[in-house]
Amino acid sequence: MKGSSPATPGGSENFTPKFDAQGLLTAVAVDADSGEVLMTAFMNAEALEATRASKKATFFSRSRQKLWVKGESSGNFLAVEEILVDCDQDCLVLRVRLPAEGAACHTGERSCFYRRLPMSGPAKLERRSIKA
Amino acid sequence: MKGSSPATPGGSENFTPKFDAQGLLTAVAVDADSGEVLMTAFMNAEALEATRASKKATFFSRSRQKLWVKGESSGNFLAVEEILVDCDQDCLVLRVRLPAEGAACHTGERSCFYRRLPMSGPAKLERRSIKA
Repeated sequence: MKGSSPATPGGSENFTPKFDAQGLLTAVAVDADSGEVLMTAFMNAEALEATRASKKATFFSRSRQKLWVKGESSGNFLAVEEILVDCDQDCLVLRVRLPAEGAACHTGERSCFYRRLPMSGPAKLERRSIKA
Repeated sequence: MKGSSPATPGGSENFTPKFDAQGLLTAVAVDADSGEVLMTAFMNAEALEATRASKKATFFSRSRQKLWVKGESSGNFLAVEEILVDCDQDCLVLRVRLPAEGAACHTGERSCFYRRLPMSGPAKLERRSIKA
């Protein structure tokens, strides 16, 4: 996320993640093919290491205070192809693949972002009419 | 983000954002055409209202504890075309347009996510070789 820490464009650089006060990074899972944002969640250091080791997106549940392998109950595992890191190393983008016909959202929707807030007028959510 | 709150797929629904303990939502800005993730930041209620009113992405700076119109110093405003809301209403995706040749990242990169963490081996960042 935007911050004051310096970045070093180009060249190799050590990964020194900036975990927040709760020891977490924000992780944004996007479809590896379309780039569509599927969901966001949090990772602590252990979740990130588990994700790299298993190639399955593994998050930290703030409500349950424990690791959570996405899909462990639903079967909708997110196969991680690439992990991108932002300029100040406090946010990750995971390029992932869902199972065929899979859903990233617990509602059964492919993406958690299946509604839109109109840019003007009453603050009522609408179903998205187009794919981002 | 994944949570236990119920969602109502389909139909119209009131927007009842679930701000965190600091009064913030996570906002993910993506390119309106390509879907590429450009940056992430935070919004409080005032930032969201300013974004809807001005159509320019406006965030809340945690370090400066004030509203921040993205691009106010660099000129790299993010023109917001659509705001998507996730299932449990604690995260937003902003579909935005950068100026021609614009950069969302303060380093001058188009996207803050210009580096990758390899899926195995030493935790060294590499420049991305492909566009997500």
